[in-house]
Amino acid sequence: MVTHGPTVRAIAAHAGVSIATVSRVLNDQEHVSPATRELVQQAIGELGGRGPRRRPARAGAVFLRCPYVLTDYFGLIVSSIAETLDLHGRQVVLNAGEAAQHNRVLPTLPTRPGIGGAIVVLPPEPGDELIALQAAGFPFVIVDPREDVPRDIAAVSASHFAGSRSLTAHLTGLGHRRIGLLAGPDNWLAGNARRAGHVSALADAGMLLDPGLVVAGEPTVRFGFEAARQLLSEPDRPTALVAFNDKVASGAMAAADRLGLRVPEDLSIAGFDDIDLAQATRPPLTTVRQPLAEMGRIAVGLLVRLLDHHRLDALHVELATELIIRESTGPARR
Amino acid sequence: MVTHGPTVRAIAAHAGVSIATVSRVLNDQEHVSPATRELVQQAIGELGGRGPRRRPARAGAVFLRCPYVLTDYFGLIVSSIAETLDLHGRQVVLNAGEAAQHNRVLPTLPTRPGIGGAIVVLPPEPGDELIALQAAGFPFVIVDPREDVPRDIAAVSASHFAGSRSLTAHLTGLGHRRIGLLAGPDNWLAGNARRAGHVSALADAGMLLDPGLVVAGEPTVRFGFEAARQLLSEPDRPTALVAFNDKVASGAMAAADRLGLRVPEDLSIAGFDDIDLAQATRPPLTTVRQPLAEMGRIAVGLLVRLLDHHRLDALHVELATELIIRESTGPARR
Repeated sequence: MVTHGPTVRAIAAHAGVSIATVSRVLNDQEHVSPATRELVQQAIGELGGRGPRRRPARAGAVFLRCPYVLTDYFGLIVSSIAETLDLHGRQVVLNAGEAAQHNRVLPTLPTRPGIGGAIVVLPPEPGDELIALQAAGFPFVIVDPREDVPRDIAAVSASHFAGSRSLTAHLTGLGHRRIGLLAGPDNWLAGNARRAGHVSALADAGMLLDPGLVVAGEPTVRFGFEAARQLLSEPDRPTALVAFNDKVASGAMAAADRLGLRVPEDLSIAGFDDIDLAQATRPPLTTVRQPLAEMGRIAVGLLVRLLDHHRLDALHVELATELIIRESTGPARR
Repeated sequence: MVTHGPTVRAIAAHAGVSIATVSRVLNDQEHVSPATRELVQQAIGELGGRGPRRRPARAGAVFLRCPYVLTDYFGLIVSSIAETLDLHGRQVVLNAGEAAQHNRVLPTLPTRPGIGGAIVVLPPEPGDELIALQAAGFPFVIVDPREDVPRDIAAVSASHFAGSRSLTAHLTGLGHRRIGLLAGPDNWLAGNARRAGHVSALADAGMLLDPGLVVAGEPTVRFGFEAARQLLSEPDRPTALVAFNDKVASGAMAAADRLGLRVPEDLSIAGFDDIDLAQATRPPLTTVRQPLAEMGRIAVGLLVRLLDHHRLDALHVELATELIIRESTGPARR
């Protein structure tokens, strides 16, 4: 990726600034902060290939907290954040794994030597802890917030509502009227937003949510299996199941198989996320793709601007999701 | 996990030392280095619950290099390493993602301020770079080496040979005689060792490897699909396929499906790794479980001992794999 004679576009991408900013620096104009000037000049130096990349002394490390096991979902976010911070010459201090849920690390960040900012993925921490961190003047960005985030805290998420709505609309369009919802935890923002999208699409088709068709739980394969078996064992069983994510959907597929139901002839099943798993099930899953890597890149962009004391107007960034139609959904059975 | 009144076993586990070492410290005996004594006493303090965990000033950060995207396989290793280093009060500096394959970071480690040691996962770096790092006196441990590792460099891997041998023996035991091999890259240690295990099990059943039944390539779903389609389209097609890993196996499943072959009635398919994917395919995959999290924990244990200037007698640690028999393998068709 490092080439000789970098273009303005390449420099801008590398430095994480606009092309206009690069031009201003190249033309030695005003209205550029010293920090940004340095970032651009550093990018030029790096892209020009003058010796090995040097990490500027001012680039403090970024604390990356993802208190979950880094499987397909979280691993893609963390990989993308790490790669992008590396482009910015920032060292990444990682705090990850299930065990990290129990440490009380956020309040200690402002006093940690060498740590300049943080990116926090799906924080289990309550909002008041985030507000306290913000009040301490410590720069950080939230990725995929679990709860509502105060307006003045930077956050990147996917459009759960729109994604879920388009998915359920796909199913109502196929004639489904009894659609089971294998929902995520009640108190998760993503769970609420996806349920709202589901309800919205049902309403568009002239229906209200039937509480008897909703089961909520932890987003695991096992939950998907149990919840699907429960809904599918009822006399007037649903003709389609919308799962909180692909793992839950794959559990539901196994339950359908166990009950002798063919997918999609007897039952449509849809997931959310589009992790690798979604293409390994048979049939492959209709799902909603989350732009996980892009979420990581945008988060780094926001953090770098915070660190450079740039003004951020849009602190809450929501990235579009995409409906991926595969073979696990089909017309409702008469 | 933090309880009152820790047992000697818990202290030993927490400190990453033997029970005998904990006893020596508790009984104030000799033959314990000051660093180890401090580690044990710190573990006692932490497990005893006396206030929040303190990070000792002497604990330098550990550089964790995993130049791959952190999906199910690498993510599990990295999560486990991060969690275990946290227990040791060591900060983790992460270098991850596909882009990290192209940086030349290993030679810079000995001069990086604040970095005390490194754990390097599946290094794409050639052996001579590792030898140079070792010669510089920098403590590091390799996880899942890609190539043969010199005797005096600490490394943790899984028993690819034994795992692959038990898998192919399972197939020959089911009566399979024509077994296709969807092999990994030729120059990977894991690929060589797994092929050797396969050949060994064939030999035990009185057969030699038929080169016409081997296709090698990148370990991806796509490769699995293409390679399986190739082998299954031959007139005298194999009755079983052994894939380099679960992703390749899931591609092979899709190819079998496309060709109208039922698994396992017409064709047995087996994978390697036992990532989540292995249970999402239908039927679920027979595979070989790699102890990924345990590999991470053992690597941290070795590194901590190197950092404490302990003697390491067994520098190459190979962890047992486990044959997981699910429904994708069955008796050979007559």
